[in-house]
Amino acid sequence: MSVMILKGCICWSLNPDQLETVENGFLVVENGLVEGVYRELPEKFRTLPVTDYTDKLILPGMTDLHIHAPQFPYRGLGMDLELLAWLEAYAFPEEAKYADIEYADRAYEIFTEHLLHSETTRASIFATLHVPATLLLMDKLEKTGLITYVGKVNMDRNSPEILTESSAQKSAKATEQWIRQVRERGYQRTKPILTPRFTPSCSDELMYRLRDLQLQYDLPLQSHLSENRGEVAWVKELCPDTSFYGEAYEQFGLFGGDHPCIMAHCVYSSEEEEELMKKNGVFIAHSPESNMNVASGIAPISRYLDHGLKVGLATDVAGGSHESMFRAMQHALQASKLRWRLVDETIRPLTFERAFYIATMGGGEFFGKVGSFMPGYAFDALVMDDANLKHPQPLTVRERLERLIYLADRTNLQAKYADGKKILG
Amino acid sequence: MSVMILKGCICWSLNPDQLETVENGFLVVENGLVEGVYRELPEKFRTLPVTDYTDKLILPGMTDLHIHAPQFPYRGLGMDLELLAWLEAYAFPEEAKYADIEYADRAYEIFTEHLLHSETTRASIFATLHVPATLLLMDKLEKTGLITYVGKVNMDRNSPEILTESSAQKSAKATEQWIRQVRERGYQRTKPILTPRFTPSCSDELMYRLRDLQLQYDLPLQSHLSENRGEVAWVKELCPDTSFYGEAYEQFGLFGGDHPCIMAHCVYSSEEEEELMKKNGVFIAHSPESNMNVASGIAPISRYLDHGLKVGLATDVAGGSHESMFRAMQHALQASKLRWRLVDETIRPLTFERAFYIATMGGGEFFGKVGSFMPGYAFDALVMDDANLKHPQPLTVRERLERLIYLADRTNLQAKYADGKKILG
Repeated sequence: MSVMILKGCICWSLNPDQLETVENGFLVVENGLVEGVYRELPEKFRTLPVTDYTDKLILPGMTDLHIHAPQFPYRGLGMDLELLAWLEAYAFPEEAKYADIEYADRAYEIFTEHLLHSETTRASIFATLHVPATLLLMDKLEKTGLITYVGKVNMDRNSPEILTESSAQKSAKATEQWIRQVRERGYQRTKPILTPRFTPSCSDELMYRLRDLQLQYDLPLQSHLSENRGEVAWVKELCPDTSFYGEAYEQFGLFGGDHPCIMAHCVYSSEEEEELMKKNGVFIAHSPESNMNVASGIAPISRYLDHGLKVGLATDVAGGSHESMFRAMQHALQASKLRWRLVDETIRPLTFERAFYIATMGGGEFFGKVGSFMPGYAFDALVMDDANLKHPQPLTVRERLERLIYLADRTNLQAKYADGKKILG
Repeated sequence: MSVMILKGCICWSLNPDQLETVENGFLVVENGLVEGVYRELPEKFRTLPVTDYTDKLILPGMTDLHIHAPQFPYRGLGMDLELLAWLEAYAFPEEAKYADIEYADRAYEIFTEHLLHSETTRASIFATLHVPATLLLMDKLEKTGLITYVGKVNMDRNSPEILTESSAQKSAKATEQWIRQVRERGYQRTKPILTPRFTPSCSDELMYRLRDLQLQYDLPLQSHLSENRGEVAWVKELCPDTSFYGEAYEQFGLFGGDHPCIMAHCVYSSEEEEELMKKNGVFIAHSPESNMNVASGIAPISRYLDHGLKVGLATDVAGGSHESMFRAMQHALQASKLRWRLVDETIRPLTFERAFYIATMGGGEFFGKVGSFMPGYAFDALVMDDANLKHPQPLTVRERLERLIYLADRTNLQAKYADGKKILG
């Protein structure tokens, strides 16, 4: 049995509304799983070596539940359009470049290097429709030690010719070949996830075929949902027989239920859509910065949590500008306050506890028992040194944590663990 | 005559809607003022030494038009209340500590060190009501080379006893003593500014006395205006004879006109208030992150610019969490998009050009010809190294600038100049 003991200022969620902190306590990990957190180290562990992070903050690693790897090169650029025009002007032309494996190599090298040095330990990632580039991305991610789902994107309609698969059959076939190649490569940390881009870019036939692949290969699925009013109206036009956007996936069996499912955004989900997400255990990937940058709006995250839906946090690069999950937490808090003030005062703003929860446990749950330091959770952790954030008086661990979320940059990350293994520092 | 020549990728505003960039051009400074920007160095300067910032970005220094120095210690903390409750719970207790000069020394040392390493070259700063601590802050700022206005705060009502001056007369007298001591110290870069906190905390008598001091000592003034709905309603109660908040200052002659004036926030300014600000040349200090964090709302900045009002950008630490003006630009852009989407689609979102303008020229104008590289402007500049922001393809200077605003942290700042003098790097 392998045991690892870390000493430091430990912070973790118990649930959306409870955040625990222990100042210079001990975190015990057995065989990659958290055994417990202690103020004083129990007798039986006292002969074992301790990794000393005294005065450093130790947090659960964060799960970025929605990020577009190929859009990373234009992060922070082209923030002047709404979603559909933005896809046409920026996202699609950039993604088309990944037909060129050398471009993909350069670009994905930058992406994986940044993700490794971010607060993210796990992520669910969109690639492009290109199989070779997607496999290359998975190779690179596997080497980092990060735990990820990666999706080869499907899109066979309503997209520029240069970024459209020529038939549903060809799209499904390429997807199956990709799945098989992934299996052959035997990744330990990098898994495939079905990724129909969104309803407007996937024909009915393609959706049926993806459902067949899901059943055959037992795969989770990720897509986009109810992000922007124009998009919602377009889906209504494309799917006249559905009464809400989520049904456009549900009608093919691609909306959770028997297989795990992530839907990004959910800014404009109706009550019925919310009900179905709850029933089917769909994970909502809340992407607050992206929803600001492309002027989509603000999702009612406190309501989703109050109603018991599954919510994780996401950067949604390059709708979001930055891979930092701390920044995503800031944006989630700020957006929720503006929604409360400007849209609906019956839905209270997110608390700090809830923002921390969705960044850690909320999205972590997509990967199993992940995102907390409760016993039995996979050991994913960040060690943060906040010594450069000077203060004229002592602060509690909880205060240091809150401040860190607003003020840290990547120089504060001292070490990082994923699934029991040290991957950085 | 002293001449300085810098080579680099130069970016500057001409007006709210025009941003110029020159790739690896030359910026010539004569006696601390910009002489011109050139693609090729003119003959007459060719024998002079050139400071080589090839491939680095050279931008005008930024003006933070509203920041509370004593609140810096709790930046990123206590973001769970609205303005008036937030003042009671966090701001006032922290500010009360500055009666202790040793605490002030520790805290202001941290503040000035951070401001020096930020993107700010000029700022208009609130201190506290304490004269010794305010002078100490001014001493420290003077040494940094930054150009600032600093205000000893006035407050003689509706505040906790520990942070209330016992009479209007005593408040005014302390202010006059402070002004005289400032004059005696002969600062070159640090100037006093009258600073009644806001209408709720200043009696009529105090306002009259401050007007007398303004006329006697020829001083500008800064305060808060129409930040939060509860505050606006309170002012209406306190000043039943006024028809809008701005009149509560105007009735004492403290709302611009014959003396320069900064009003922070202006989230809920009425049409009449806007008219009067325009007529009196009042500078609006837009504080978008603070307006999110304490759930105030979003100011209609595009409308103010369209109507020809004077607008500068501000971090408003500690309502804002961070001293970075780049982050303030991000927040300004994001907030304006949400306002357009959620509140009023007739007021278009800020463009990148406008956000850059308010951060540089807009607020810079409070200090004179400041915040641009047009001929005759004071030479305030930032030299930014963005080499760590990797990209798989070449970018234009304009693209690099936009990306930098979203992605930079303080490690990207290589050098800084204020009023013709190098103060960092």
